[in-house]
Amino acid sequence: MSGAIDVNADLGEGFGVWTLGDDTGLLEVITSANIACGFHAGDPTIMRRVCGEAVLRGVTIGAQVGYRDLAGFGRRAIEIAPADLTAEVIYQIGALDAFARVAGDRVRYVKPHGALYNAAVASAGPAGAIVEAVSLYDASLPVVTLAGGELARQAAAAGLTVVPEAFADRTYTADGRLLSRLVPGAVLDNPSEIAARVLQMAISGTAVAVDGTVVEVAARSVCVHGDTPGALAIARAVRAALAAASVTLAPFAAGP
Amino acid sequence: MSGAIDVNADLGEGFGVWTLGDDTGLLEVITSANIACGFHAGDPTIMRRVCGEAVLRGVTIGAQVGYRDLAGFGRRAIEIAPADLTAEVIYQIGALDAFARVAGDRVRYVKPHGALYNAAVASAGPAGAIVEAVSLYDASLPVVTLAGGELARQAAAAGLTVVPEAFADRTYTADGRLLSRLVPGAVLDNPSEIAARVLQMAISGTAVAVDGTVVEVAARSVCVHGDTPGALAIARAVRAALAAASVTLAPFAAGP
Amino acid sequence: MSGAIDVNADLGEGFGVWTLGDDTGLLEVITSANIACGFHAGDPTIMRRVCGEAVLRGVTIGAQVGYRDLAGFGRRAIEIAPADLTAEVIYQIGALDAFARVAGDRVRYVKPHGALYNAAVASAGPAGAIVEAVSLYDASLPVVTLAGGELARQAAAAGLTVVPEAFADRTYTADGRLLSRLVPGAVLDNPSEIAARVLQMAISGTAVAVDGTVVEVAARSVCVHGDTPGALAIARAVRAALAAASVTLAPFAAGP
Amino acid sequence: MSGAIDVNADLGEGFGVWTLGDDTGLLEVITSANIACGFHAGDPTIMRRVCGEAVLRGVTIGAQVGYRDLAGFGRRAIEIAPADLTAEVIYQIGALDAFARVAGDRVRYVKPHGALYNAAVASAGPAGAIVEAVSLYDASLPVVTLAGGELARQAAAAGLTVVPEAFADRTYTADGRLLSRLVPGAVLDNPSEIAARVLQMAISGTAVAVDGTVVEVAARSVCVHGDTPGALAIARAVRAALAAASVTLAPFAAGP
Repeated sequence: MSGAIDVNADLGEGFGVWTLGDDTGLLEVITSANIACGFHAGDPTIMRRVCGEAVLRGVTIGAQVGYRDLAGFGRRAIEIAPADLTAEVIYQIGALDAFARVAGDRVRYVKPHGALYNAAVASAGPAGAIVEAVSLYDASLPVVTLAGGELARQAAAAGLTVVPEAFADRTYTADGRLLSRLVPGAVLDNPSEIAARVLQMAISGTAVAVDGTVVEVAARSVCVHGDTPGALAIARAVRAALAAASVTLAPFAAGP
Repeated sequence: MSGAIDVNADLGEGFGVWTLGDDTGLLEVITSANIACGFHAGDPTIMRRVCGEAVLRGVTIGAQVGYRDLAGFGRRAIEIAPADLTAEVIYQIGALDAFARVAGDRVRYVKPHGALYNAAVASAGPAGAIVEAVSLYDASLPVVTLAGGELARQAAAAGLTVVPEAFADRTYTADGRLLSRLVPGAVLDNPSEIAARVLQMAISGTAVAVDGTVVEVAARSVCVHGDTPGALAIARAVRAALAAASVTLAPFAAGP
Repeated sequence: MSGAIDVNADLGEGFGVWTLGDDTGLLEVITSANIACGFHAGDPTIMRRVCGEAVLRGVTIGAQVGYRDLAGFGRRAIEIAPADLTAEVIYQIGALDAFARVAGDRVRYVKPHGALYNAAVASAGPAGAIVEAVSLYDASLPVVTLAGGELARQAAAAGLTVVPEAFADRTYTADGRLLSRLVPGAVLDNPSEIAARVLQMAISGTAVAVDGTVVEVAARSVCVHGDTPGALAIARAVRAALAAASVTLAPFAAGP
Repeated sequence: MSGAIDVNADLGEGFGVWTLGDDTGLLEVITSANIACGFHAGDPTIMRRVCGEAVLRGVTIGAQVGYRDLAGFGRRAIEIAPADLTAEVIYQIGALDAFARVAGDRVRYVKPHGALYNAAVASAGPAGAIVEAVSLYDASLPVVTLAGGELARQAAAAGLTVVPEAFADRTYTADGRLLSRLVPGAVLDNPSEIAARVLQMAISGTAVAVDGTVVEVAARSVCVHGDTPGALAIARAVRAALAAASVTLAPFAAGP
């Protein structure tokens, strides 16, 4: 694999008085900000502030769309009809786009969150709903998702740009999938180990799987989590390792 | 007063399984649709459908922004900080604009709903918050409000276009204000009487007040309610009366 | 089958300004009211009013618990963790019980709504969560559900009283299950036909299935829907048919 | 003033994935827990857990009722009709009572939160709504509020028990009211200073006002905040100071 790598993280995931993660810290490290749009997290005040800070730091703004589920933080699958989901995704993109434009930029990609992310990788209904929403709103917006999943397939078929994504802190299986979180060792927390893995993904497009084999991990963007303890330390280690190896860190989508 | 008159009504004010008013019927009569944006009423599926129908019928789309209050239908004043209100208004306009654009048009004006409408007429804080939101999002968007109120004053001062609005079914006081709903006779329900009043407003810019005096009622747009029994009959009577008198019925804002 | 039959319906399913069904009309006909508890529908003002009316008319109050999903009216399955669902069910029962007690009675049974009803019939997780909630809150409360389902099984195993329920307006399959709503003819709407079916259920505990065979339909209570056109006419026809045949109409649970 | 003093704090004010304050730490220090009921904060899972922990530690459970306003944390006044507010308060008490009973105790008092607290001190409508709710649900439940306010007056007139409350970390004016938070010095943050003030309140029923005069501060309970930095340190200092001075620390309401 050659070319630049992007580092994305979930931002703006507080709600009202409640906070989550260190948005300001992460904005110093990442190149793309998946900003919550108010359905699983985020509120208008937070969205406006984070968009403003992202533009100030030159970080690309993406719409992190989720299920309407504040109580469950969008982590619970909801069997919503695809037509309703399409409308909910359009709504969220439009709302965030307003703040992005007020801040002087615009929404430049779409990434589903949590249970919607997983549903769109696995199932035709949610994947199709997201593809239709993006196609209708602005077919030039890339969709960030796991390579090889249903969303990637449908988005490509619809002519959308697919940005394959890898996870900095997750262990992969021998067939290139994410090891279930229920398995011990599925989620890594050592910053230098994580940074080394990201470096390998960026340089060779591969990762060492749980069984020791080397698997291909297509990734134009690497996701670092923002809501775990030590998230910022991990993100900084990743960025530093990429810089030390002279890997070009660059968003996959950006304004003129 | 000369020139055209616009007829606006609140649309898309259901939520999920619940319906309110006859959107399809009203769209045959009105020239401007104040579409709810999901905070006091409306959901993404409804917003998408009503925007689509409005465009099909050539009805202008406006953002009917309200307090975040589904339980109270936006009819309860909320002491929200102006900066938060500004963000909430931007959010709502952006969300509706997404559906308007998907339908082939765009949001062409902003009108506050319910308690926010009243608060913005009466108080500097809410009025300023709305003016800031519109100015930031798109300063070319007109604001529909009562003439002489705080919102009209601040919007004009900020260089926004103010569209003065009259209410078809409300009695006015001798000083040109709306008679309180608590007073018997404050709300009219006879279609032909209402139609005659709107005709007078459109032709002479006046209305007969509760005490019999004739007061000036500046109105580029007349609001007909959509959620009362007989709403559609009233709207049709208004439209027919205007047509019979050869008053030009035309939206105050429209696409090219 | 011998003994009395109960007629239940969903009540209090409006929200704020929005209404659904004819609560007052149904209260004249039914013997048990499944009152929505604010999660899929219902709000405190509605709950208070409907509880008061139910007590006045001698109708038994049951907690109609649902997923937290106003936007989807509780009709969308949500993959909520069982422990969280247990807490949500306890919350809803407690809230409704407050109004039942203020009205002079109390909650006397629990019936899940919509997607939660179906999930609890089909799946161990939701069924167990409801059983745990009822067991913890008040193990003397009966649970209304489809005979033969997972909820019936787990509730019985936990020592709860199970009230088997039949649906007045639904066609059954040859093996005694509900014909999918997607199949034409699955939902009946002719009042006299529905009344005749309920009568057969009450007298012989059977129904004519879609293929003409006679299947056993265990029912201590019959559900009439309240949110369809003609719902009240159907409920009245059912009640009249039962009365004409001298079938005892009586709630399965009631106060002293 | 003689007798025992109670220390209360707001608990269970997270929502879903979001947390606020150190519930477990505070439960080691306080005697009465104002547990959020899901309207301004709190969710069923949190309510169940905090009720369980409170019972384990012998801390009295109170219903911290608030406006329906998760987005504003109940800190924004809402002009809700008194009858609707009464229903919302009954709903919240009932929901929390379910968890208290499941945990082996019950709700033993009611305290309004945030903007509702202030509204009930200042205005007849909100005060009356709360008094009606408590009177209807269980007239033996004490109401915790500022002495001399509208809620205290109406509650006493209705025969409810009023528990006068002082604020550990707030400066008082010369006429015994709370100095506005907008005034520098209105909120104290030094644990030993706060502890000394609480000790004076408990022993002599007085406080040194902002102008140096000594004012009467009627307090059967002292509120320590749980959501500020250093909240736990303050609560511990208050508790230690009371213990060192042999002031009896005891809840104003408790089970047998």
